[in-house]
Amino acid sequence: MIGFEHMKRISRGSTSKIVFLVMDGVGGLPHPETGKTELESARKPNLDRIARDSLCGLTDPISPGITPGSAPGHLALFGYDPVLYDVGRGIVEALGIDLDLKPGDIAARGNFCTVDDKGIITDRRAGRLSTEKNAELCRLLSDIALQGTGISVVPVKEHRFVLILRGEGLSPDLTDSDPQQIGLAPRKVQALSEHAEQTAGIANEFVSEASNRLRNQSSANMVLLRGFSHRPAIPSIPEIYKLKPAAIAAYPMYRGLARLIGMDVLPTGENIRDQVETLRRHYDDYDFFFVHYKQTDSRGEDGDFGAKVKAIENLDNALDGLLSLDPEVLIVAGDHSTPATLAMHSWHPVPFMLRARWCRHDAVSEFSERACLAGGLGRFPATDIMPLAMANALKLDKFGA
Amino acid sequence: MIGFEHMKRISRGSTSKIVFLVMDGVGGLPHPETGKTELESARKPNLDRIARDSLCGLTDPISPGITPGSAPGHLALFGYDPVLYDVGRGIVEALGIDLDLKPGDIAARGNFCTVDDKGIITDRRAGRLSTEKNAELCRLLSDIALQGTGISVVPVKEHRFVLILRGEGLSPDLTDSDPQQIGLAPRKVQALSEHAEQTAGIANEFVSEASNRLRNQSSANMVLLRGFSHRPAIPSIPEIYKLKPAAIAAYPMYRGLARLIGMDVLPTGENIRDQVETLRRHYDDYDFFFVHYKQTDSRGEDGDFGAKVKAIENLDNALDGLLSLDPEVLIVAGDHSTPATLAMHSWHPVPFMLRARWCRHDAVSEFSERACLAGGLGRFPATDIMPLAMANALKLDKFGA
Repeated sequence: MIGFEHMKRISRGSTSKIVFLVMDGVGGLPHPETGKTELESARKPNLDRIARDSLCGLTDPISPGITPGSAPGHLALFGYDPVLYDVGRGIVEALGIDLDLKPGDIAARGNFCTVDDKGIITDRRAGRLSTEKNAELCRLLSDIALQGTGISVVPVKEHRFVLILRGEGLSPDLTDSDPQQIGLAPRKVQALSEHAEQTAGIANEFVSEASNRLRNQSSANMVLLRGFSHRPAIPSIPEIYKLKPAAIAAYPMYRGLARLIGMDVLPTGENIRDQVETLRRHYDDYDFFFVHYKQTDSRGEDGDFGAKVKAIENLDNALDGLLSLDPEVLIVAGDHSTPATLAMHSWHPVPFMLRARWCRHDAVSEFSERACLAGGLGRFPATDIMPLAMANALKLDKFGA
Repeated sequence: MIGFEHMKRISRGSTSKIVFLVMDGVGGLPHPETGKTELESARKPNLDRIARDSLCGLTDPISPGITPGSAPGHLALFGYDPVLYDVGRGIVEALGIDLDLKPGDIAARGNFCTVDDKGIITDRRAGRLSTEKNAELCRLLSDIALQGTGISVVPVKEHRFVLILRGEGLSPDLTDSDPQQIGLAPRKVQALSEHAEQTAGIANEFVSEASNRLRNQSSANMVLLRGFSHRPAIPSIPEIYKLKPAAIAAYPMYRGLARLIGMDVLPTGENIRDQVETLRRHYDDYDFFFVHYKQTDSRGEDGDFGAKVKAIENLDNALDGLLSLDPEVLIVAGDHSTPATLAMHSWHPVPFMLRARWCRHDAVSEFSERACLAGGLGRFPATDIMPLAMANALKLDKFGA
């Protein structure tokens, strides 16, 4: 990738359309009984047909061996070096619920959790309490007063909330209080730089007062904080690529991330058919569409191989409406692999295909990990996807004289 | 690529020969009727025989998706990071007509153009005036006097000329006057740094006086300037690789670029048979030969699929004389693709082969885009070619203890 300054110089507006379908966590591993991955097990005539007309390959979201979180995985897809552009967990969570962050605000991801009478964590998600209960508990914590620092405690879903600290001279250079495993006590938040000492004190004061106020709750009797972060300075998609981009995503986090990098976020429904319908309705209004499909990742994380196969088939089923739009560039990619056998995000490279009039086809006739390995793109960094998309949409001038 | 400082340390002189044949714009796309690319359509027994004895692959001249201009495309072939070593448009143009640039000179590419009576550009090429008329107009502008700055106005072909500014303290940090579209007025040249204010004034004074002198011309009544640039500081091939290099190129731009990086430029004829004859005549005098074949690119840019196929066949026909020299390393590469169906430079990776006693062969038996995809080098950055050439010529010591 040539760098954003060069990209800004050679990118140009045009009427061609890029549809960028992200199947979250799509890559998998073979089922021990069949020897076939989730993609190889699914009946998916549309995806396989696209593969036959595409240039295929396998992407490394960050670099070989590195398992990406959702934010870096997606940033790489849109051309941002995920090591350079670090979006903290707190910010990602805040963006996902449409919080309007001011420069200087600190956001942290919070969990309601259960601790026993010795203060040891017994459930990091407090039995996945209801979102209604979550909202009630957030109200209970919202008027905690912290030495002139404003706070917001905003419910997300189930056990998740966002803590916002707003005031002068706050620093996000803080360790997590969340040890990310049960059997341990929550940790003290510690400053990673001198400048952050005061903020660490404030965070710990919040945790301590929250613990007091939650003492009598049956399960959600403590909070865990992680990913203290500022809103990063990050160039936008319209600025870098001269695109007019829209995001069609059902999950808040992906909507938030899309907004952060300058996409319009379109209201849409909960399932992929709604999303395709949204795409169709707004097809004339934008030249770049990020369509995010979450179920492949969710079922992979559940460790449910069959359900992930089903999720792939459901997507495939909904693709007719998308294919009939016949965009100049159609991309099917993933932000990382989530093999059901591992039941978590993984480091395995991710099947990729790009269909366009001007792509040089390869012999791949199926959308799967093994088939894409023989693709014309070989194995390549995910940050190369956007230059390829732009080139195939004839939206790039040549580089140099 | 390990960087030039390291390369200088490990490269060593030897008697082995490297012949580096560049088929400009060689990569293509399938013809819609036959499904075969230009290379796949051509009868080319020599190239296919070389492929059978070679290590093959596909090069990315800059990075995936990026379409190179001729200068960065060639710089990459010789190991120069084309993003780092930026050769400006003005310099490329000047090199192409054998202008002897001094350090500190500023070169700009000029167009004679047509403006209407409101000063709006109606033809950026003044009806592609004749080269003779161009020479006459350049003479008319050559004695414009500019505050102690020397100028040369040198005709190129048709509507194109080169402007050289020579004097103390000139800076190329200037915007173009050429808006690169019709319907607009030429722009004022602006300084991009404080240091360049004076040079901007001089450039604008040139434009204004040129406009006066051209006022009564029927079509070529104005000039457009772009790509103000210095001769870049660039390490030479002999310095980096300890090679004694010669260039055998029929087109001025490639001769100029070769001279810029320290190659001797050998006088040669207009066609590939002349070039091969030149190679044979000077074979004992050098250890590195850059042989540039232009026709594959020219016919591709014409959009003439059949003529590009023919250009490949003509080259193949002329190869006997080259093959009988049996150089220790023979490379066949391209600076970029120029698919006839696109009729322009493109971003598609470029077929590559390297034949040498010590290369590890692969199973490729044909020189084409699809065949090279299965080659032992896979897809790789063009800047890796020179280290591979040097290694296979046994001209590199090992790196580190």
